[in-house]
This record gives sequence, C-alpha cells and structure tokens, in this order.
Amino acid sequence: MKLAEVGEFGLIRRIAEKIPAHRSVVLGIGDDAAGILPSAGCITLITSDMLLEGVHFDLSFSDPISLGRKSLAVNLSDLAAMGALPRQFLLSLGLPRSIEVEFIDRFMEGVLATARSYGAILVGGDTCASKSGLVISITALGEQRPERVLKRSAARVGDLVFVTGTLGDAAAGLELLQRGVREGRLVDRQLAPEPRVAAGAALADAGFVHAMIDVSDGLVSDLGHICELSGVGAKVEVELLPLSEEYRRVCGADPYPLALSGGEDYELLFTAAPGQEKNVLALMQRLGLQTSIIGEITDGKGVELFRPDGSPYSPAKSGFDHFG
Amino acid sequence: MKLAEVGEFGLIRRIAEKIPAHRSVVLGIGDDAAGILPSAGCITLITSDMLLEGVHFDLSFSDPISLGRKSLAVNLSDLAAMGALPRQFLLSLGLPRSIEVEFIDRFMEGVLATARSYGAILVGGDTCASKSGLVISITALGEQRPERVLKRSAARVGDLVFVTGTLGDAAAGLELLQRGVREGRLVDRQLAPEPRVAAGAALADAGFVHAMIDVSDGLVSDLGHICELSGVGAKVEVELLPLSEEYRRVCGADPYPLALSGGEDYELLFTAAPGQEKNVLALMQRLGLQTSIIGEITDGKGVELFRPDGSPYSPAKSGFDHFG
Repeated sequence: MKLAEVGEFGLIRRIAEKIPAHRSVVLGIGDDAAGILPSAGCITLITSDMLLEGVHFDLSFSDPISLGRKSLAVNLSDLAAMGALPRQFLLSLGLPRSIEVEFIDRFMEGVLATARSYGAILVGGDTCASKSGLVISITALGEQRPERVLKRSAARVGDLVFVTGTLGDAAAGLELLQRGVREGRLVDRQLAPEPRVAAGAALADAGFVHAMIDVSDGLVSDLGHICELSGVGAKVEVELLPLSEEYRRVCGADPYPLALSGGEDYELLFTAAPGQEKNVLALMQRLGLQTSIIGEITDGKGVELFRPDGSPYSPAKSGFDHFG
Repeated sequence: MKLAEVGEFGLIRRIAEKIPAHRSVVLGIGDDAAGILPSAGCITLITSDMLLEGVHFDLSFSDPISLGRKSLAVNLSDLAAMGALPRQFLLSLGLPRSIEVEFIDRFMEGVLATARSYGAILVGGDTCASKSGLVISITALGEQRPERVLKRSAARVGDLVFVTGTLGDAAAGLELLQRGVREGRLVDRQLAPEPRVAAGAALADAGFVHAMIDVSDGLVSDLGHICELSGVGAKVEVELLPLSEEYRRVCGADPYPLALSGGEDYELLFTAAPGQEKNVLALMQRLGLQTSIIGEITDGKGVELFRPDGSPYSPAKSGFDHFG
C-alpha cells in the first residue's frame, strides 16, 4: 500500500493508536503541542538528531526495523551521556510519496521497540512529503536531578579516562556493509547500536564521574570536546583501547586508526578521579558492561596518543566532520 | 565562503556565540543535551515542524532571512495555539555541501530575530550534510499552567467559532510568488507569517476559551480537527470569513475556496461560549488583533458551510494533506 492511499492523518492515526499512556506525559499526540512535566527535583534534558538518506543511512543495506531502532537510539545515547533517563520523544518524518506504508510500519516497529526498551513515550512530531529521500528528525527528552547531570566541561587534571564496550566496531561494520557483508556482530553494531542508558544514569547517580560524552564522532574527536570544554588535555595509550575479537579479525595491520576516529559506537566516554577506578569498575561490572581505562586528563591541550614504548602515535585521521 | 571551509564545529561556534543566557535554560548549547526547567506551576509544551526544500519552500523566491523567520514562526504558532509562551527551541539543519556560509548566516539572522521577538532561546540541535537540498527541523518548547492549556478537544455544542486576522492571504501569496510577483502584503504573509503568540497566551490566561488550534492546514481542515477531537460539528457562514482587501483584489469571482482551504495563515481559530463574545472581542481589541465570529459549534459531525441565504456551500477542495 502506498502512503498516498493512507494520507497524512491516516498515518498519524496508525502511529498514535500504538502509544501507551505515561504519567510524565500530561498531553500526548493529537494537539498542536504535547505537554510534559519532569519529576519533582528534576530538570528536562533535550537533544535532537537528524538522519538523512544517503548521508546517515543507505536503504540498500539498512532494513527498516533496524533504521527505526537506530534513529531513536542515537538520540537516547545523547541523553545517556548526560546521565539522564529517557522520558519522551518527538519524531518528524519526511517521506517520499512512493514509499510503502509497510516500510513505515516496520520502521515504526523498530522505533517503538527501542522506545519501550528504554522507557521513552512518543508525544508528537511531524509528517510531510519529501522530494529527496527519507528524512528522519528526532527530539528526545529525559530527566535528571540538575546536580547529577554530567557535562563535557567537568574533567579535572589527573582524572582517569574510561570508555565502555569496544571501539571501532560500528565503523568496521559500515565498511563490511559497503563490501556486501550483511550479518555478524560488527554489522549489527553499525545498524542497531545500543545506547548505554542504564550505565549513564547509574554513573550520574553514583556521583563519582566528572565529565561524560558519548562516542558518536570518534574517540579522538569526542575526547577532544571534553578537553576543549574543560580547558584540559588528555593522553591516551593506544594499546589500552578496547577492541573486540571480531574487530581485530578485520582491522588489518594497524588496528588503531578506525578505533580512534571511527564514529557511531555510542559508547560512554567519561572521566573520574584516580582512586575511584575500583568504584567505577565495580558499578559497571554489576551492570554487565565492559569498561576500560584508556588514559588520563593532563594540563596540556588536546588529545595526545602514545604507543606502549612511550613514543607518540599519529593516527591517519581524527574524528568525523560532516562538512570536511 | 563555502560551508566546507568552516566545518561542522566552526558552524556551531558561529551560531552559539550569538545566543543570550536565560533563566529558563539550565544548560545551553555545547553538551550532548540541553537542560531546561519550566517556571513553578507550569508544564512544558513541545512541538516539532519540518520544512523541506521543494516541498515547503522554494529558494527561487524565499530569501534566507524570511525563511529563517518562517521556520521558527510556524513552530511558535503551534505553541500559541496551546496558549503557551515560547521559551526554548532546537534547530536541526541538513545542509547541501555547496551552500554558502553567508546564506546560513542570513538564515540564522532571521531565525534569531524571530526568537528575540517572542522570547525563545536556541538551546541545541544538529547540523549535518544533505545530499538532497536544505532540510530544516525545529522543535520549540514553551510553558503554561496545565489548567490553562487550550486543547483541540474542548469545544462544546453552542460555542461560537472565532478566528483572528484574515484568511487565504498566505495561499494567495504563494500563487502570486509562483506567477513571479515578489512583493506586497500577500507575499509577505506567505514568506514571513507572524505567530499569534501574545494573543494565544492572553486567551489562555483569560479563561473563557474552550478549544483552540492554529490555521496551518486550512480553515475547514483545522476546524475539522477541533470537531473530531471534541466530538462535535461546526457550521460556518462563508460570508463571515475575514478577507483582506488585498486578497479580495486577486481571489477571483468566488473568494471562499482559498480562504476555506488555503493553509499557512497561522491565525488562531478558537471557540468560546455565547455570552463571552464581548469579552473575547474586547481582549483582542486591546491586543490590536482583528477577530471575527464565523460560525458555531453544533451537535452534528464535521464542518458544514452555508451561504448568506442559508443554502449549503461546497468548496472545491478542503485542507492540505501532504500525501494526498
């Protein structure tokens, strides 16, 4: 069935009837705006990410369910990086007139599955025709007590640098997809990343983390944001970078460039005072999330990379600039 | 200067340095998410609208400043329709790689001028490359006391139907632009609509309005939303539709079809009990905003249109469905 047969308001009805009620939503889908209220003592954290066909995803290898999951996941990862719990989201879609309603249904199945997993309620958005491919824009809202919110600007000289999970998987997965591979853990990490929502909130609540960000642009770029906003430097020992077995099998002779600059891993990168490493690692172990110490915060400038023998390491490229 | 020379982070810095601080913003641009808090006793109202090149705007006749103004204005109009005062907004842009930075600067000049006029602070968003034209997605946040929020679902049988300003101007302006006309009041109404923010909040605070919506899809379509969600009908007398002199000069023999179905006027359409018309009209007169009574709410279904002699009137088309 083509979208034109269902119409804009038919599409909105199809979506709206699947949305549960929730106490954080004072006024849901159906009015000019939704009404929300954070829990007592909390502020609302809010973030937006846009995904464009041909830039952020390729429909020749993104299935609609995974695309729906990822579209929301990348927004929830931004909330996780602040230590916030997701509460609501708005979804705006620019849809080619020829798109099949079944594609939208499967896309929404992915969006709403991720929403259920992490406790986010769809409260609004927009739908419109697109003359230029599928356009997805999501705004996600979460909440946290203001004194617990974790910012990029709070790293201190001497802090240890931690990262969850493994690095480079999503970038390696993209390369595999472009070469025709359609399954495996690396491909899954690219197509359906998991936002570290529980870990982000637990780290914020625990109180021993200074600065936090999610690894979306690439480790060097994102750690660089922490350095710039905190007025500090960082050194990273490349042999400490957490690399998966699957990644090591495909990454070639030098495993570090993609792990340092490949984006979209959506892991948490954070700093805490030395002496807190046992607390951090014990907390993350309880959550079942591998966490590694990869370096420390210095009184220098920018991110410096070192080899095991103490000599400087220079990667081929650093970070992802959308217009570079 | 091309965007590629400035880069993504350079662009964000260019924008961020122009944003003022405000007490409603706990945490502004620069982190993974912004932090906001409504005033005591208020809820947050939130709405998103997407504008796509070739669908919502045509760069051959939209100048960048007006486009910036309109992109935010259509979102603020949704807040106005709830009776909410604007507080913050997020802006996501998909930008063709070849776009001139000067275009973006002028576009932002328009966005931020409208933001200043209505008290909205830019707190975040996203920027990315687009392979298919300019993509604009805005999420606007406002606030109001929950008991004062005006919904589509609160119209009651016997209510009078009011509309601010004049109808059909924006649709007529679009037709003129497509025929090569580049100035005049109708063209201005299409390119740079004014959201009825002060009037929306004043009507909510006054307490005598039942249901409200903004006229974005067209009068019949938007009044139809009120009817559907309130479980009522409405009758409108076409000769009572407020039409501007400029509109009457260009609308041809039958002035009503475009006034009934042309969208984008961004006027407020609302209902109030009979007996309140003096209060409504006095309030709107104090705000300097022409307001007309065009019909009433019935116990029927849908919107019925009548001529002065009491006979039914049938317009050529009703409302704007993006996929119809």
